Amino acid sequence: MAGDGLQELRDELGRITLEILRLAARRREISEKIGELKERMGMSLLDRAAEARLRARVLEECRRLGLGEELGMRLLNILVEDSLEAQRKAGGDEFAYRKIFVKAAEMLRRGEKIIRMEVGEPDFGAPPSVIEAMCQAARQGYAKYSSGQGLGELREAIASKTSEKLGVDLRGENVVITVGGVMATYLSIEALTRPGDEVVVVEPGWPLYKPQARLHGRRVVEAVARMEDGWSPIEALEKVVGEATRLIVINYPNNPTGKVLTRDEMEEILELAERYDAWVVSDEVYLDYIYDGEAVSVLQFSYPKTVLIGSFSKAWGMTGYRIGYLITGSEEAGRMAHIQNLIITNLPEFIQKAALKALEEDEAVKRNVEEIRRRLETLCSELGRSRAIEFQRPQGAMYVFPRIKAQLDSVEFAWKLLEEKKVAVAPGASFGQSFRSYFRVSAGRPVEELREGARRIVEALEESVG
Amino acid sequence: MAGDGLQELRDELGRITLEILRLAARRREISEKIGELKERMGMSLLDRAAEARLRARVLEECRRLGLGEELGMRLLNILVEDSLEAQRKAGGDEFAYRKIFVKAAEMLRRGEKIIRMEVGEPDFGAPPSVIEAMCQAARQGYAKYSSGQGLGELREAIASKTSEKLGVDLRGENVVITVGGVMATYLSIEALTRPGDEVVVVEPGWPLYKPQARLHGRRVVEAVARMEDGWSPIEALEKVVGEATRLIVINYPNNPTGKVLTRDEMEEILELAERYDAWVVSDEVYLDYIYDGEAVSVLQFSYPKTVLIGSFSKAWGMTGYRIGYLITGSEEAGRMAHIQNLIITNLPEFIQKAALKALEEDEAVKRNVEEIRRRLETLCSELGRSRAIEFQRPQGAMYVFPRIKAQLDSVEFAWKLLEEKKVAVAPGASFGQSFRSYFRVSAGRPVEELREGARRIVEALEESVG
Repeated sequence: MAGDGLQELRDELGRITLEILRLAARRREISEKIGELKERMGMSLLDRAAEARLRARVLEECRRLGLGEELGMRLLNILVEDSLEAQRKAGGDEFAYRKIFVKAAEMLRRGEKIIRMEVGEPDFGAPPSVIEAMCQAARQGYAKYSSGQGLGELREAIASKTSEKLGVDLRGENVVITVGGVMATYLSIEALTRPGDEVVVVEPGWPLYKPQARLHGRRVVEAVARMEDGWSPIEALEKVVGEATRLIVINYPNNPTGKVLTRDEMEEILELAERYDAWVVSDEVYLDYIYDGEAVSVLQFSYPKTVLIGSFSKAWGMTGYRIGYLITGSEEAGRMAHIQNLIITNLPEFIQKAALKALEEDEAVKRNVEEIRRRLETLCSELGRSRAIEFQRPQGAMYVFPRIKAQLDSVEFAWKLLEEKKVAVAPGASFGQSFRSYFRVSAGRPVEELREGARRIVEALEESVG
Repeated sequence: MAGDGLQELRDELGRITLEILRLAARRREISEKIGELKERMGMSLLDRAAEARLRARVLEECRRLGLGEELGMRLLNILVEDSLEAQRKAGGDEFAYRKIFVKAAEMLRRGEKIIRMEVGEPDFGAPPSVIEAMCQAARQGYAKYSSGQGLGELREAIASKTSEKLGVDLRGENVVITVGGVMATYLSIEALTRPGDEVVVVEPGWPLYKPQARLHGRRVVEAVARMEDGWSPIEALEKVVGEATRLIVINYPNNPTGKVLTRDEMEEILELAERYDAWVVSDEVYLDYIYDGEAVSVLQFSYPKTVLIGSFSKAWGMTGYRIGYLITGSEEAGRMAHIQNLIITNLPEFIQKAALKALEEDEAVKRNVEEIRRRLETLCSELGRSRAIEFQRPQGAMYVFPRIKAQLDSVEFAWKLLEEKKVAVAPGASFGQSFRSYFRVSAGRPVEELREGARRIVEALEESVG
């Protein structure tokens, strides 16, 4: 067999590829029919039981064919995602918030007086000692190329402070210094899953987990928590986590609901993950902001497939310094650092020196947390005057997440509020499709401004829903 | 048709899915056979013409079937990647340089006196006025969440300065402020190509274009320039650019050869790109560093599908500030900013304020360029003493790239040099597999240190090859 043999094999490869496409097209037709049928019957589109059965058959077939389960799963996920797309109608609204943010910033620049309660950014800014530490480091020339994983001394300091705080045993090699918490979640998804893999995201939650996962073809499945259950995610997770789940993203204290996870709840989540050998990425950037309940971290349990996401943004008011971190196994940390290195080389050393200084400023964190607690109390008592909304008092974080009882779309309401009352809030749709009647109010501004903002919100609600 | 109809459709969906898997398994068997056959015939695994034909047929079939090119491409990419995995063996050596960098940094930390000529980092640091501008901005609270595209005033300033310098007409909306040039090339590849697309990279070139492209499944094809042609890339590009090419990365003044592109050469590259409707990403971070020839930018020609990559790292000595930019069409700029926003939110505002100040510091740039020119002259005359190597005098940038005439692997040579002579250089293999007998020497250190380093290199060459 020589060159001719090669040509024959290639032709065969081509024929098989086109046959796969034809089958995929036929599959889509059938999916569309199923979608129509389900709609007529008032059934939900996502049928996890049917999907699980198909998945089991696919796995069995992969084994029989010696195909490798990974390839089989990736193919199946692409096909299933396509089916759902064929069945699905409306799209997500993760960027509804971003549009309000951009508009509010623009109005401010034009000189309008806007009360900004949409952005998750405390107004207090970095402690002066931190600013000066940065300036000193820059003057001393800490502004060179360095490690993609972060400065050794900062990683060691975070490892030892976190170990002490949580009663665990970490090393610097477990830590990656990242461009804020946002890069930390991105790197976790990138390094721990592959295109076509399934990522479960608890909702309501921070708006960017989903677009981050979808950016490179992960399949997102939402676990939707409900206010009626005190925002506990357990039931929702039990419903959707399964054989296909490769990674679960949780975020407690929760943005936007303020829910704090109990020890039992964290344990249940980790057991569920362990049952299906899935990773748990736990975004704990609000772990210092707890008013009711105790700080529970994913690192305090024995399950090893976990990533903690931390940040200097919220506790120290250092949002614009763009520095956060992740803590995980040393092998995974190395892989994530490698990806970060390919995208940004490294974080500025002078910013890492500033963060090192921040770690000494426990008093600033305490003051900030106390201040946000007071603001949230004011917000709750002001918003509590309206009978048009209901909400659960936040146990942590820095937001209130009310539901408008009447039929009122919160994206429309947010735009009306911004234009007529000059108050910016984040529409609930940004935190998940099920929360279109909710909106998020942030405690990032001084208390008197928040009081005035809340009054205007109550006023607007009265005008809108009577 | 009721519940039963649904069950029938689901069964059909399951049958089709399993049939697709069987075809995928058959496809892998054939790929393995092709791999064996190619190996026996001494052929390269990558057959671009065959792949381009298959890709074209798949696209045609998608259209015919109304399948949506996205799904078709996603399926094809998973299948092609799987075929290559079944065929593939050894990997590249882009990280040989990084290993030397890490080792040299570690030796320095341990107190050893190392002459670091491996890293592309000028030693002069940011101008003092830039450092102070940053400190002032941080104290004034320019440390909040802001635009993923960058501060408007900085984008406007870059647009107007570049317009004036190159005789073109740019707006702030054409500019994205990025985390160094590294993020700018990454975003360009991400936004302008898709998994499975072909990216042509000129070699020798900056080591990270290839791993950046491969990170999310782009197919990399190298256009290998030769010293014998005065490092002109034209012939090499003509050989590989074709129907499958979606994007070409060029880098002039070139790292590592110091080659400066002529106006005619740039024109030929753009004509070639236009013939195949490919994007040209032109990394021009060394555009201020020219000693022989004139500054030619990709923006000075009429072809619209281009991206200029710029940086504050080299001209102002601001490597560790991690700030660069890209200039392209406003629609593409918006898409790239969106991706950057998903990964890092935004760059620190105080760093952007520092960059704004740097734009006023033309004198500092002139001094830096003059200093590097002097250093390169010293390097050339010292290295010129050795008959064991040959090199072309750099016309630009900040490196010398000699070839060892004898049979000597430069990775081995670099390690020996570091361990025995305490001099770090970058092995040629990092800049492309064809350059294993080359090494790169950087002019980033003071002239006396470079002179001593060059002497030791000459000494080591004599000991190694006689």
